[in-house]
Amino acid sequence: MTNSSNIFHIEQIALLPSIGKWLCMASVVAALAGSAAAIFLMTLDHATAWREAHRWIIWLLPVAGFGVGMVYHLAGRSVERGNNLIIDEIHDPQKVIPLRMVPLVLGGTVVSHLFGASVGREGTAVQMGAALADQLTQLLRVTPEGRRVLLMAGMSAGFAAVFGTPLAGTIFGLEVLAIGRIRHDALLPCIVASLGADQVCLAWGVHHTHYAIGTIVPVGFWSVAAVIVAGIVFGLAGMAFAVSAHRVGAAAKRWISYAPLRPAIGGILIALAVWGVDAWRYTGLGIPEIVRAFQQPVSPWDFFGKMFFTVLSLGTGFKGGEVTPLFYIGATLGNALAPILHLPFAMLAGLGFVAVFAGAANTPIATTLMAIELFGPAIGPFAAIACVTAYLFSGRTGIYHAQLIGLGKH
Amino acid sequence: MTNSSNIFHIEQIALLPSIGKWLCMASVVAALAGSAAAIFLMTLDHATAWREAHRWIIWLLPVAGFGVGMVYHLAGRSVERGNNLIIDEIHDPQKVIPLRMVPLVLGGTVVSHLFGASVGREGTAVQMGAALADQLTQLLRVTPEGRRVLLMAGMSAGFAAVFGTPLAGTIFGLEVLAIGRIRHDALLPCIVASLGADQVCLAWGVHHTHYAIGTIVPVGFWSVAAVIVAGIVFGLAGMAFAVSAHRVGAAAKRWISYAPLRPAIGGILIALAVWGVDAWRYTGLGIPEIVRAFQQPVSPWDFFGKMFFTVLSLGTGFKGGEVTPLFYIGATLGNALAPILHLPFAMLAGLGFVAVFAGAANTPIATTLMAIELFGPAIGPFAAIACVTAYLFSGRTGIYHAQLIGLGKH
Repeated sequence: MTNSSNIFHIEQIALLPSIGKWLCMASVVAALAGSAAAIFLMTLDHATAWREAHRWIIWLLPVAGFGVGMVYHLAGRSVERGNNLIIDEIHDPQKVIPLRMVPLVLGGTVVSHLFGASVGREGTAVQMGAALADQLTQLLRVTPEGRRVLLMAGMSAGFAAVFGTPLAGTIFGLEVLAIGRIRHDALLPCIVASLGADQVCLAWGVHHTHYAIGTIVPVGFWSVAAVIVAGIVFGLAGMAFAVSAHRVGAAAKRWISYAPLRPAIGGILIALAVWGVDAWRYTGLGIPEIVRAFQQPVSPWDFFGKMFFTVLSLGTGFKGGEVTPLFYIGATLGNALAPILHLPFAMLAGLGFVAVFAGAANTPIATTLMAIELFGPAIGPFAAIACVTAYLFSGRTGIYHAQLIGLGKH
Repeated sequence: MTNSSNIFHIEQIALLPSIGKWLCMASVVAALAGSAAAIFLMTLDHATAWREAHRWIIWLLPVAGFGVGMVYHLAGRSVERGNNLIIDEIHDPQKVIPLRMVPLVLGGTVVSHLFGASVGREGTAVQMGAALADQLTQLLRVTPEGRRVLLMAGMSAGFAAVFGTPLAGTIFGLEVLAIGRIRHDALLPCIVASLGADQVCLAWGVHHTHYAIGTIVPVGFWSVAAVIVAGIVFGLAGMAFAVSAHRVGAAAKRWISYAPLRPAIGGILIALAVWGVDAWRYTGLGIPEIVRAFQQPVSPWDFFGKMFFTVLSLGTGFKGGEVTPLFYIGATLGNALAPILHLPFAMLAGLGFVAVFAGAANTPIATTLMAIELFGPAIGPFAAIACVTAYLFSGRTGIYHAQLIGLGKH
């Protein structure tokens, strides 16, 4: 303790070039990941609008699935593990993520959305951010330890830009790696990359959806107890999602040995199911349905429908993320729970939005910050309770199976 | 992974009684810590008002110091390590914190404030919260592992109640224990205790000071660069505070072997200095001066004056916390930096308020949340950058020397 001022001059001045280097690298990551996210979001908007105007295209989903499967089969085996590949490389650096991850996941996701699969977007943005960041590794001869931080900054930046939530993005990149702990050593690069990527994405003209959270009830015994009950339900829903996604994926691999056939058959099943039960609202991102869950009562089985279509889409090999579908599942589930728990629709929709994701991804602090960034600070204490409860009740698994078990949950 | 649904029924249902037990215990902790904080804050208000109306009382500060020193010498040796004792007990549970910690630190702090020492209040609230929480250990036969969580919940609750910031309180209780990491396993008890203690404290009629943060400039290259520069200065100030507090404390112990004489001599020095340079504004908490730093330019040496008086007060054995003086140091230092960095006074005062504390206590995430809770979400990204930069530049020490070095900072 007493020798701390002896190291003052050495340690703090030695820090300056390192900080300067990381600020430059984080800015480059921000520019790359933010631009990639912006191009992705704008393309996705067009694809979604086109699909909504030409709904017959769902019948071509098997063909699109076969195409995506074939491209990954021929050119994408090194990157098909997606987010899990990145998390593994952070834990145990082996080799640079191939740049081809960027066009493959971008193209695969846009095609999946265009033809009507039920997938998200965070996986795409996170993979693009991390793969682009990792290209600096060879260019700048980054050390293996530095490469870890670079990959975390890329994940943070992609997440921050795609949702417009820089603080949630920062903590997501740190919290997603291992269940039960956060490491502080990559904080500054992750913040600068997240904040920069968000700004770059906005500068491209991207607008993020606004969700009107309305009235938040006061903190009190009954409101907190109701939110804990809701958090348990959200956590079980997150676990059900993660477990069934793994099982459907494993079953598809076991039964259909030729990889490109998996999304083709998945596409046939999805197209028939969409047509059979008129389930248009479960295709694509479903942003209008999420917005509606903040405004009025929705069907109590909507959360299940979205879970079914998303698990089928991702499990059979369509590309995209899990998070926006988890927002959808959470918002509609929260909406359905609102009358039972005597809380406002919008408040419980907002809590479900973040908490099902918190449970499925094991990221309670990132999702609490996301709630504050998207819905304002008044939701903060309730979001913290809902996200932590969901995290506790979502079991030992999660949507990212490369995630380590840090300390255990409880 | 695939056996996760087999454990569904067992694990999730087994969790319910444990969660229920912790919710009850956290509620009791909330009631105790919140009430103690409320009584403390109300008493402190009276003591401060009385001192301001009877300024001659500063000449009795040596007598008061001797009294506080004598009481701790005779009855308080088991608890005089304060926050560090609690942190040590969490890391390595030995024996229950004596209940006498509560009246001793409460009385010692109020007397210190009444007679004009420059001390804070978080240490008092945190020690009362943790000591009261720890009394449940024997009553309910809590296991050593459970006792760790109970002590963390008590710290969180005391912090949350005294500043009116439940989310910052929650993370403070988890983040303060070790430099460089956060553990998730005590999250739910800490949230519930924090939120409850804040509500209990408000229900007693306590009002927290409102700081008007005014305009936040847009995120951009120059504003982020300026905040990084400010963060470096805030971190060095936090380190200077921590190092000089340790040194003055060690010097007082070396030179003055009879413990009660240390605050007596400290009191003489403080009274002479206050009288000599008319330094009334450095006595007590200094809330009016903190508020002023958000409104108008203040002296550029105010931060140094407050640091001098606080280090002298705490180093010679007056009781109270470090945090409100750190808010004062940070707000006035930020105010002084504002014209140089071309940023608004209030914005930099707010950033200094949290970031000097972040550097001195090594708690960057708790302080970022505190900024959002006190000043609104627009400050969030800048607060994150300032707090993390300050944390990186504050060296390997901190105001709590029982804090472990978890992973290193960078």
